[in-house]
Amino acid sequence: MEGKVESLWEEVRELTLGTTVDRLRSPPTPLQFLRDFVSQNKPCIISNAISHWPALSLWSTPSYLATALSSSLVSLHLTPDGQADALVPHPSQSSLCFVSAHVQPTLFPQALDLIRRPPSHLVAYLQQQNDCFRTEYSELESDCDAHIPWASEALGCLPEAVNLWIGNHLSQTSFHKDHYENLYAVVSGEKHFLLLPPTDVHRMYIKEYPAARYSYSQENGEFRLEVEEPERYVPWSSVDPCPARASLKQESLKFPLYFNGPKPFEVTVKAGEVLYLPSMWFHHVRQSPGDGGCTIAVNYCKDEMIFFVALA
Amino acid sequence: MEGKVESLWEEVRELTLGTTVDRLRSPPTPLQFLRDFVSQNKPCIISNAISHWPALSLWSTPSYLATALSSSLVSLHLTPDGQADALVPHPSQSSLCFVSAHVQPTLFPQALDLIRRPPSHLVAYLQQQNDCFRTEYSELESDCDAHIPWASEALGCLPEAVNLWIGNHLSQTSFHKDHYENLYAVVSGEKHFLLLPPTDVHRMYIKEYPAARYSYSQENGEFRLEVEEPERYVPWSSVDPCPARASLKQESLKFPLYFNGPKPFEVTVKAGEVLYLPSMWFHHVRQSPGDGGCTIAVNYCKDEMIFFVALA
Repeated sequence: MEGKVESLWEEVRELTLGTTVDRLRSPPTPLQFLRDFVSQNKPCIISNAISHWPALSLWSTPSYLATALSSSLVSLHLTPDGQADALVPHPSQSSLCFVSAHVQPTLFPQALDLIRRPPSHLVAYLQQQNDCFRTEYSELESDCDAHIPWASEALGCLPEAVNLWIGNHLSQTSFHKDHYENLYAVVSGEKHFLLLPPTDVHRMYIKEYPAARYSYSQENGEFRLEVEEPERYVPWSSVDPCPARASLKQESLKFPLYFNGPKPFEVTVKAGEVLYLPSMWFHHVRQSPGDGGCTIAVNYCKDEMIFFVALA
Repeated sequence: MEGKVESLWEEVRELTLGTTVDRLRSPPTPLQFLRDFVSQNKPCIISNAISHWPALSLWSTPSYLATALSSSLVSLHLTPDGQADALVPHPSQSSLCFVSAHVQPTLFPQALDLIRRPPSHLVAYLQQQNDCFRTEYSELESDCDAHIPWASEALGCLPEAVNLWIGNHLSQTSFHKDHYENLYAVVSGEKHFLLLPPTDVHRMYIKEYPAARYSYSQENGEFRLEVEEPERYVPWSSVDPCPARASLKQESLKFPLYFNGPKPFEVTVKAGEVLYLPSMWFHHVRQSPGDGGCTIAVNYCKDEMIFFVALA
């Protein structure tokens, strides 16, 4: 019976989502975007949607960015290994906890330097989903469009947050979902996404993990892992889709629904391309740097839940 | 607590749906229709969308219809009281059953006559949701458009069924929901809808009722109520929103969530107007005849579930 349900569910998935993520060679009309993707909660990659952005050529030159933001204090996220918002061994128990990065207010040129030339003991990542592009990075606003016009028209609103992401090949984002409609425009380098539809939630082994945070000491260059007090629990996927080769078998045994089921959609979004990531899709993200030595992306999002949050 | 949840739920309803059904003075663009109504599962009434249909003037003349369909055999639905697909006392138990009409293949001119000049012992209704307009009534096809262009473009497909409805003021349709996206174009007379969103399902007191059917004998002009053998059960709303005045209090006691909660949206769709009835909305329908002595409507629908039905 379970096998039958599973094969039906695979069939439904294949019929509704296909086996690859659609690639559009030019921006869709608002109607196409809404009808063929948003309404169907179906991702796609769009080429030639941001070719006119000055950012595409300007941001590959680190000195341009460093000059534009020479006196900007930005929120730099620091971890020992590039894994923020991820599961790590609990400092005092034989279990896992959910760790967030140490956030260090840093002058932008210094932050960029740490990202482009990572020291051996830390990984720096500029990543915040708090509308940072329109606040911390407002000097760069004229290098991009304020919104993606066909998407705004399709969704009937302007983005609620626009964020900038600057990282290197060491930073990874573990599997999670957001309740945003998300347009992810890569400006420099490449982003590698693993995507699973919301219906695959049962394969993600979501559990509650105690929240922790890295605390970085600039004096001795060491990270301390601090579990939040009072305890707070975060629901998070237990699955690491890219385990070390040596532990793959063990991980498969622990998470058979993930490892023995259909593979996630694997997409690489290159500089100049935009990924539409529908709300509630699970995504895991890695990145490769571009010419300037880092991966840069701008994302536009609309919170699907904002209405309910406001009411609650 | 229950009171709080209920007031929150009323608030959400009012904020998302408003207090009245939107009226558009002209057809929306496909994008507007998809974004502002279909995507939000929100009904609307559209004026001036079918003004160009020859049907609007032609069908008010009964002789035109009788001539066009002079030799057409159509499926006439007969009930003693205009209540088909409704709950009536079970013939052998002290409970209710779900009764369908007697279906009598009838020459169209004779059917139309029975609808326009109802005899005292029966109510006739031409109502089938089996694409009948393109089959039984194909002679009338050139009087209407084959589809509603802005809706087809929004939904990305042509209608899966187009149906014709001809009835009189005695026919009512009890509260139910369909899994169709539905566009209901009134050509003659008026249709009076009570509408409740899918989230109000808990107020509908849906129970399983044994299926029955009227059997009409032309010889003695009597209806017999026959419960289906083997027994089959149909989930149906127990609520009659328009009870006789004498039984209102009793009905309110039996169905307090319906009668004490927010009133359904009440809309009248006049000749020349189109109602967009989103899938899964509960609707109750009454009608008033137009000049030709009957109410005529054409509806276009797209089965939301067809994909899953095909797989099951």
